Amino acid sequence: TLGLIAAQVIGIIMIILVGSWLGNYRGGYGWDVSKVFNYHPLFMTIGMIFLYGDAMLVYRAFRQTTKLYVKILHGIIQVAVFVFAAVALKAAFDSHNKAPKPIPNMYSLHSWVGLAAVILFGMQWVCGFVSFLFPKLSDGLRRMYLPHHKFWGVAIFGLCVAAALMGITEKAFFSLPNGQYSTLPGEGVLINFFGSFVVIFGVLVIYLVTK
Amino acid sequence: TLGLIAAQVIGIIMIILVGSWLGNYRGGYGWDVSKVFNYHPLFMTIGMIFLYGDAMLVYRAFRQTTKLYVKILHGIIQVAVFVFAAVALKAAFDSHNKAPKPIPNMYSLHSWVGLAAVILFGMQWVCGFVSFLFPKLSDGLRRMYLPHHKFWGVAIFGLCVAAALMGITEKAFFSLPNGQYSTLPGEGVLINFFGSFVVIFGVLVIYLVTK
Ligand code: HEM
Ligand code: HEM
Ligand code: HEM
Ligand code: HEM
Ligand SMILES: O=C1O[C@H]([C@@H](O)CO)C(O)=C1O
Repeated sequence: TLGLIAAQVIGIIMIILVGSWLGNYRGGYGWDVSKVFNYHPLFMTIGMIFLYGDAMLVYRAFRQTTKLYVKILHGIIQVAVFVFAAVALKAAFDSHNKAPKPIPNMYSLHSWVGLAAVILFGMQWVCGFVSFLFPKLSDGLRRMYLPHHKFWGVAIFGLCVAAALMGITEKAFFSLPNGQYSTLPGEGVLINFFGSFVVIFGVLVIYLVTK
Repeated sequence: TLGLIAAQVIGIIMIILVGSWLGNYRGGYGWDVSKVFNYHPLFMTIGMIFLYGDAMLVYRAFRQTTKLYVKILHGIIQVAVFVFAAVALKAAFDSHNKAPKPIPNMYSLHSWVGLAAVILFGMQWVCGFVSFLFPKLSDGLRRMYLPHHKFWGVAIFGLCVAAALMGITEKAFFSLPNGQYSTLPGEGVLINFFGSFVVIFGVLVIYLVTK
């Protein structure tokens, strides 16, 4: 449980760091095209990193609770993850399409890995729901699928962490161009700390889920 | 074994992709300052991704062989990994320090995560050597350390993959500035395929090592 508490603390610091980066240095939040991008990192970090991690940890946190309740919680948090991800994607695409000079979509390695992660996540959700909740597979098939469910749950989480780190790297160079990032101004330090907390949260969650 | 063969094929394609990217589009290889950087991604990919992965897989590939021989192979490949990483680091630092207009070191999230991975790797090597090869811990202590050795072996590998993906993202925007990357020219497609193969190799190795 110490590990579970540490994960919450690190996760919340991570969200404060991304929130204050975009809030204080990048114009804050809003749906007009000058600000809409900022929802993308914020909601991806809350959804695809923090809530995703916690959804996997519920089986560790609620060992005493009736299995069915924990399953429903696990499934519902993953729905919230998907909602955050969808809004975050919409924010990124709008920021490209509605810009005065529109920017092409899906060109970067970040966007390829990121979209792949979101699609795999959706597939994992359907497979998990059908197998474990409704209509529910036979006991034998459930037992066969479970290790794959666990592996892909963690693997897709790893893809999300990797995508987030590439996204942070891109945005660092967009925000601090012409060698400004290399002088490590306050914003650059904030960005690197945010990224470091994404790494620490990611490693800790995977440690707790696989041990 | 099908998985082990697939990992070799994907790994070799990955190395061909990074080699031809820097070889054909970025001026090729050499120790003068205009080219020295190109050794960095090449040797990091060969060492910290490909050989690192294979070093972890030797226990899967040589199940029939005397344990001591496999241990020695596992340890020796990891020495080669470290040599490649050291030369790759030297190439990156030289490319900054010897540039006509020197560039600061260790400013990026990529460099923070990357250097942390190399240092943790060095520590893991010492712990593995001392525990399992010479002077060798007692059976009880070895048994206690083994799961941590396995977890950190895989976790540091994950950090290397994440570092590589951030490095690729940086170099993509350095090489194709002013929105060129977003038009996905040949070099951009090559970069994205290289990065995709890093992801696929990483997921496959972790799957094989943890199953
Ligand atoms: C798991 C989390 C994430 C996923 C799945 C993800 C996914 C995506 C996708 C699919 C796009 C393409 C949008 C388009 O082409 O219109 C995109 C764009 C972008 N994302 Fe993310 N993202 C994630 C996290 C982040 C984070 C944390 C940042 C940090 C600032 C970020 C920065 C960017 C930037 C700068 C773009 C626009 C440039 C580009 O298309 O690469 N992303 N993201
Ligand atoms: C994208 C969505 C999902 C992801 C990423 C995911 C991920 C995971 C992970 C990583 C575990 C292992 C947890 C642990 O060992 O502590 C797990 C376990 C489990 N998940 Fe999911 N899951 C998802 C959706 C679902 C859904 C919709 C259900 C339906 C109820 C479900 C049912 C289960 C069950 C029954 C377990 C086994 C717990 C156990 O007995 O150890 N999952 N999931
Ligand atoms: C696991 C693999 C890798 C590790 C551990 C690593 C580590 C590092 C470190 C420590 C630096 C800082 C050097 C300095 O400050 O002088 C650096 C710089 C750099 N690396 Fe990597 N690297 C890796 C892979 C890659 C790859 C595959 C690329 C792809 C092109 C890359 C691109 C860069 C670039 C562009 C720089 C200079 C800008 C910066 O300092 O961030 N790296 N790398
Ligand atoms: C940085 C260097 C190292 C890394 C990243 C690393 C990583 C790993 C990994 C991931 C495994 C699990 C493999 C599997 O289950 O198939 C493993 C197993 C093992 N490693 Fe290492 N290792 C390193 C250095 C060493 C060294 C120097 C030794 C000394 C001989 C060593 C001895 C062992 C042993 C005995 C096992 C257990 C195999 C078993 O019985 O399942 N490792 N290592
Ligand atoms: O030296 C070794 O230690 C571990 C294990 O025996 C400890 O219990 C292992 O697999 C070795 O080859």
